[in-house]
Amino acid sequence: MPHTLILVRHGQSDWNEKNLFTGWVDVRLTELGKKEAARAGDLLVESKIVPDIVYTSLLSRAIQTSNIALDKADLLYLPVKRNWRLNERHYGALQGKNKAETLETYGNEKFMTWRRSFDVPPPPIADDDKYSQFHDPRYKDLAKDEIPKTESLKIVIDRLLPYWKSDISKDILDGKTVIVFAHGNSIRALVKHLDGISDTDIAGLNIPTGIPLVYELDDDLKPVKPSYYLDPEAAAAGAAAVANQGKK
Amino acid sequence: MPHTLILVRHGQSDWNEKNLFTGWVDVRLTELGKKEAARAGDLLVESKIVPDIVYTSLLSRAIQTSNIALDKADLLYLPVKRNWRLNERHYGALQGKNKAETLETYGNEKFMTWRRSFDVPPPPIADDDKYSQFHDPRYKDLAKDEIPKTESLKIVIDRLLPYWKSDISKDILDGKTVIVFAHGNSIRALVKHLDGISDTDIAGLNIPTGIPLVYELDDDLKPVKPSYYLDPEAAAAGAAAVANQGKK
Repeated sequence: MPHTLILVRHGQSDWNEKNLFTGWVDVRLTELGKKEAARAGDLLVESKIVPDIVYTSLLSRAIQTSNIALDKADLLYLPVKRNWRLNERHYGALQGKNKAETLETYGNEKFMTWRRSFDVPPPPIADDDKYSQFHDPRYKDLAKDEIPKTESLKIVIDRLLPYWKSDISKDILDGKTVIVFAHGNSIRALVKHLDGISDTDIAGLNIPTGIPLVYELDDDLKPVKPSYYLDPEAAAAGAAAVANQGKK
Repeated sequence: MPHTLILVRHGQSDWNEKNLFTGWVDVRLTELGKKEAARAGDLLVESKIVPDIVYTSLLSRAIQTSNIALDKADLLYLPVKRNWRLNERHYGALQGKNKAETLETYGNEKFMTWRRSFDVPPPPIADDDKYSQFHDPRYKDLAKDEIPKTESLKIVIDRLLPYWKSDISKDILDGKTVIVFAHGNSIRALVKHLDGISDTDIAGLNIPTGIPLVYELDDDLKPVKPSYYLDPEAAAAGAAAVANQGKK
């Protein structure tokens, strides 16, 4: 019997809608985002996959998505683990900036480098910037040098994989079906690791919001078949919409 | 510095409203119940008490209350532990029965004995009763003889205190401010233990819905002063309403 892992990107947030770089800024779901979360719960029920444990980031939009989806699927009682290592990529000084304006100001090359290059982070955010998390009480248990000032996808992978190994993969190998509610880039990081995608090819991978992505894994945590979305048609449309972000 | 413990009874549920014995039946909050939960979140913010960890039962109405209150208080990111030992008292064969009808059928003496006696449980529920939890997947990790068929308040205390000792009180003594979202009788069980209330006097204690009850405890987990509700006036009215349940 393969192990099952389900990844869910949070539904639309206020700043997705406003086309702002969000990163670690703790914005909430829009009404559409809440509907997407409820739909994720319906898709879970239809799939007949019943998770045993829930993982979330520390960001409200992922937790809201999990709360709404699990309520819809009548699974509120599941044990939950939350960790900052599942957070969205930190967008550095771009946090709070409009994507279209950033594109206009810096030009397409820099814009696409910051959005899609594997290892070039945006400029770091200042500790006293109103969109910095340096003084956020939710990260009080982290060492000050652990709180990111900016991140590339490579840095996200480097801070996520230790938690994947210490916690998530252990639960999977213990026979638990795991569901993870997280973010575009923390899910891209996991998908890159699980599917062995190259540093170059990962640039073209977009994760749609609110549609559960299912992995069946062997005892070495290798996929026994290609992963699949619970609503493949909506997932394809959603991924295309993500790819087009930043374009006016 | 004393330790802080906050107890919150879930908001009004569908069956509170319909005046049915609920126990372990997994009913949801009413719209009023959701408002009470949001109000609990507002009261937390006003109190400036910031919990470090959240405990809930496995029942949706307590978890819904925690999700709504923590969202309102901007504390969704807190770590959460859920355990069946915080569940409501199991009401045995009365689960699903109307309180006013039960009062009429059995008379006031039996009714008040089942509701308020310390150690007389109602008749046990049959395993194949539609309101039994014997086959409920959320309790699949419990031994079959651990799943209650009926409970008195004494039995609730006996199954709750081991968890209080193994988990909740450890977190408190580790210096964490703990918030517990639970039920009328699991909270009465904790209050009886913390305040050293006698088996007789506990009959007169009613817990209002949705109003955080704050304990300040010393290193022996004894209250350093009387516990208090964050909205004492609403709490008094709410407790009176609970005392009047079952009366037409």
